[in-house]
Amino acid sequence: MSILEKVNEPKDFKNFTISQLTELADDVRALIIDKVSKVGGHFGPNMAVVEMIVALHKVFNSPVDKFIWDVSHQSYPHKVLTGRKSGFTDGHFHDVTGFTSQAESAHDFFTIGHTSTSVANAVGLAHARDLTGTKGNVIAIIGDGSLSGGLALEALNNAGDYTKNLIIIANDNEMSIAENHGGLYKSLADLRNSNGTSTNNIFKAFNLDYRYLENGHDMAALVALFEEVKDIDHPIVLHIHTEKGHGYTPSLDNKIAWHWHSPFDKATGLSPTNTNDGENFVKIVNDFMDEKLADGVPLVAINAAIPGIFNLKDFESRHPHNYVDVGIAEQYSITYGGALAAGGARPIIFHNSTFLQRAYDQLWHDLAINNEPAIVIVKGNKIDGSDVTHQGDFGLGMITNIPNLVTLAPTSSEELLAMLAWGISQTDQPVIIFMPEHGVVHRLSKLKTFEKPVYDVVKTGEKVAILGLGGLFSHAEKAVLELEKSGISATLVNPLFAGDLDKVTLTELASTHDLIVTIEDGVLAGGFGEKVSAFLGKSDVKVLNFGADKEFNDSVPLDTLYERYHLTIELLVADILASL
Amino acid sequence: MSILEKVNEPKDFKNFTISQLTELADDVRALIIDKVSKVGGHFGPNMAVVEMIVALHKVFNSPVDKFIWDVSHQSYPHKVLTGRKSGFTDGHFHDVTGFTSQAESAHDFFTIGHTSTSVANAVGLAHARDLTGTKGNVIAIIGDGSLSGGLALEALNNAGDYTKNLIIIANDNEMSIAENHGGLYKSLADLRNSNGTSTNNIFKAFNLDYRYLENGHDMAALVALFEEVKDIDHPIVLHIHTEKGHGYTPSLDNKIAWHWHSPFDKATGLSPTNTNDGENFVKIVNDFMDEKLADGVPLVAINAAIPGIFNLKDFESRHPHNYVDVGIAEQYSITYGGALAAGGARPIIFHNSTFLQRAYDQLWHDLAINNEPAIVIVKGNKIDGSDVTHQGDFGLGMITNIPNLVTLAPTSSEELLAMLAWGISQTDQPVIIFMPEHGVVHRLSKLKTFEKPVYDVVKTGEKVAILGLGGLFSHAEKAVLELEKSGISATLVNPLFAGDLDKVTLTELASTHDLIVTIEDGVLAGGFGEKVSAFLGKSDVKVLNFGADKEFNDSVPLDTLYERYHLTIELLVADILASL
Repeated sequence: MSILEKVNEPKDFKNFTISQLTELADDVRALIIDKVSKVGGHFGPNMAVVEMIVALHKVFNSPVDKFIWDVSHQSYPHKVLTGRKSGFTDGHFHDVTGFTSQAESAHDFFTIGHTSTSVANAVGLAHARDLTGTKGNVIAIIGDGSLSGGLALEALNNAGDYTKNLIIIANDNEMSIAENHGGLYKSLADLRNSNGTSTNNIFKAFNLDYRYLENGHDMAALVALFEEVKDIDHPIVLHIHTEKGHGYTPSLDNKIAWHWHSPFDKATGLSPTNTNDGENFVKIVNDFMDEKLADGVPLVAINAAIPGIFNLKDFESRHPHNYVDVGIAEQYSITYGGALAAGGARPIIFHNSTFLQRAYDQLWHDLAINNEPAIVIVKGNKIDGSDVTHQGDFGLGMITNIPNLVTLAPTSSEELLAMLAWGISQTDQPVIIFMPEHGVVHRLSKLKTFEKPVYDVVKTGEKVAILGLGGLFSHAEKAVLELEKSGISATLVNPLFAGDLDKVTLTELASTHDLIVTIEDGVLAGGFGEKVSAFLGKSDVKVLNFGADKEFNDSVPLDTLYERYHLTIELLVADILASL
Repeated sequence: MSILEKVNEPKDFKNFTISQLTELADDVRALIIDKVSKVGGHFGPNMAVVEMIVALHKVFNSPVDKFIWDVSHQSYPHKVLTGRKSGFTDGHFHDVTGFTSQAESAHDFFTIGHTSTSVANAVGLAHARDLTGTKGNVIAIIGDGSLSGGLALEALNNAGDYTKNLIIIANDNEMSIAENHGGLYKSLADLRNSNGTSTNNIFKAFNLDYRYLENGHDMAALVALFEEVKDIDHPIVLHIHTEKGHGYTPSLDNKIAWHWHSPFDKATGLSPTNTNDGENFVKIVNDFMDEKLADGVPLVAINAAIPGIFNLKDFESRHPHNYVDVGIAEQYSITYGGALAAGGARPIIFHNSTFLQRAYDQLWHDLAINNEPAIVIVKGNKIDGSDVTHQGDFGLGMITNIPNLVTLAPTSSEELLAMLAWGISQTDQPVIIFMPEHGVVHRLSKLKTFEKPVYDVVKTGEKVAILGLGGLFSHAEKAVLELEKSGISATLVNPLFAGDLDKVTLTELASTHDLIVTIEDGVLAGGFGEKVSAFLGKSDVKVLNFGADKEFNDSVPLDTLYERYHLTIELLVADILASL
């Protein structure tokens, strides 16, 4: 019988010896390896903190003492030890989410998915404790990668002003999602190499007390350290050195690949090979950049700690001087990228829609007001079944209401390439390209330049005109075909421009049709369709907008969402017919 | 003849002696004092850097060497010395703006108004220089207050990875707009008190080379320091100790009041007393907070370095334990404030619409997804003639498209108080209140709770229904009166809810009127009216939206904007009559 079988809650191991705790950690690790091998998930970060989490729950009294996990993708062991062990067993894998969730447990305090929030949240909970006269330690656990985010640094600065109990664990596994970037990581290395004695100490520079632990997998040392600082009367940073992927050899050999991992064979660490060598939009963009660099264009590919989704590590290997990963620092990526453009270089900044939310102000001020001719490629602006904390379909509402940005939604590889070619050749405006998310489609681009919005009227019909933006242009195509069956020859439009209206075409369409239909792969609020509706509000034409409601959805299957939003072709066509 | 009379451009004083440079600085200071005494402007920050800027232009070769000013409200001396002296003389005061501007001079590189951008912009320009094979030093000048902003810290971290010429001047005048907040300011003080030798060095912790200068007004020392680091081959921080308000006694006695100052008598430093002791919305909110604290509510008033516009320093003096200025750290203000709410305290977070742009992601994730019952008061979301970098009228488009936020637009003191009372009493949702910007109006609040959008139909008429949101409800009232003259008894609606629709009322209005008119005190794109238009797109009613276009405006008079957007009552009513 494994020792974990006796453990469901922290109270079950309060009296364990160090060797029993070590055995428990081994069992927890094995359980997590087993789950991830079967359904995939965050791997390396969880392996690094198994011993730490066992020791934390041994010493502290959760949930009176409050653990705040940064990003919380490393909270699997915490979940196993706080009543959610069954979510790591066959048949129940989806009973627990991959992040902390108040809905799931009283031991979780925040729903988190973006990094660098834990210290700010911890100071808030600690201060609330003081104001309401309640008790307990507040403990933030932040990974070294999250430290480079501006919010984390703002919070460390404010924590340095705070005067009561607050424990910040800097969980230093020497890595972000990929490598770390920035000067502070040299300081962290100095601290590791000097057993915490280096004078270059970012934490002390924020006026924080500091303690270093070299072996973050040594149960006795962990327990001793936590016992020592429990109920401390002021803020302290515990800098704990851990190993990403600890305890599973394959993950130590390629830490980047094992940050998150798809299902694998436990014995070998191998996964079925993905042999998808076909066309894809990421490759099209990379090939375009190679070509421009061969032509001598001073191009720079920038990203903020997410090279993988754009295959940019391969780009870096080909063009090391034209590649910059700024680390987790989305704000900086835009301001810096804009300045590169202002200085005559040609930046292409790669972002995921959800993380780009961190740089709203920089898009507005540093790119848009300054009209800096950078290209920003936005991936993930689509309706999908993602975690609520990574819901990307609010991108249109965030970006298209900012002046001066040319916001483009290509539907084919040819359109994407035309937009890139124009974007990199001009120096008048920032260009945002919403990357297509479906398989590669071929359709010639009628436009060569994109200064002014000009819609592509693909087919002229009557009664109803359907405008399908970007990723859901294919829906418009299918709806037009379906309408033919009802004897309606609809007009099909590829708007291409997400944020500015082709008022000439819209006015013409309004005067020759009874109904205008817009379809977009995102939340309607603040997006494309509402702009069309508002522009046509004073005309006689009716307008129907199809897209997602303004709501958060946590891992809701796409089919369910499409049904709910009438984005199946059947429901879409029924709504159109009912409005004619 | 003053020495400044001989100087128009940096080349005019390249050969000056130290004593001539000192004389020049005195003249520049006198000129700036004279201008601000007559038209108002940023005072203390400019006084602090006069000698530094003279020395910079003596040693470096602008614009080949590039100065990047953080916020740039301290760039007046730079403007005087780069061909714009006349903008500081009677009759020409408005020829130059208060911030750097590429349109104004080849010596300016960015249009800036939000803080903490200079280092990111400088690394970008430096990197572009390397990639394009051009020359020159790149010099960022950042005030100590701006250092607490996450973007500045992200940029220092990235600068620590950079390997070529880059000079960062940390202009340490010991103050932000108000006092500084955060642990790093204790480190800066340690550095000042140890002549730069303290081991708690935030710059070195980011792997940056470092030099300290104790007297930032010593021309010889400044020139020597800049000569020494000119053309340096790696990034370095010059930590220069300056005095805010240097050289003008009245401004040394009250540095906060003299950060920005209205016109004053040069001899005495006195301004005409503003005796406006009447009702105002700021006082109403402060009185409300006093009352709640007296009732024992664990309320916390939070702001990010802008206590003045909400009169919060007075609040702090009454309630020091219930007041937090987080410094320039907008992101942190929201995440921290949300966590306070999660922990059972009752935070009210005060923001200016323009600066709240920095916290878009935190509004979305930390407040909205987590449904943390904080109240955020947003000032400045109105169409006005502000600098483009402080244009606040995009607030609706930014905030109202985020789910879960109850976004309220009161039109009277009673409505404001009802919203505050409900907001502080409930713990289910975050509440955003767009502060009214006009004089105090009294109108009873029909609603006591605000969970669900319910419009206030103030007067029921026919043909046209006018919905006037928040600050421009008065426009709707006036338009209704004006329409009476044309024999039209219009319906008047106070929507109160900025982000969610009262679909019942709207459906009813649509079925009983020919035209729905929306009026909002902000940019239409992504805002209130577009949501109404989209909802009514499939009905027969016509909809007209009045508000600002999606565009940047730099100090355009309000009258001009109202004409342009048909927001005068005359033009508004004419448009309505033409649509009937």
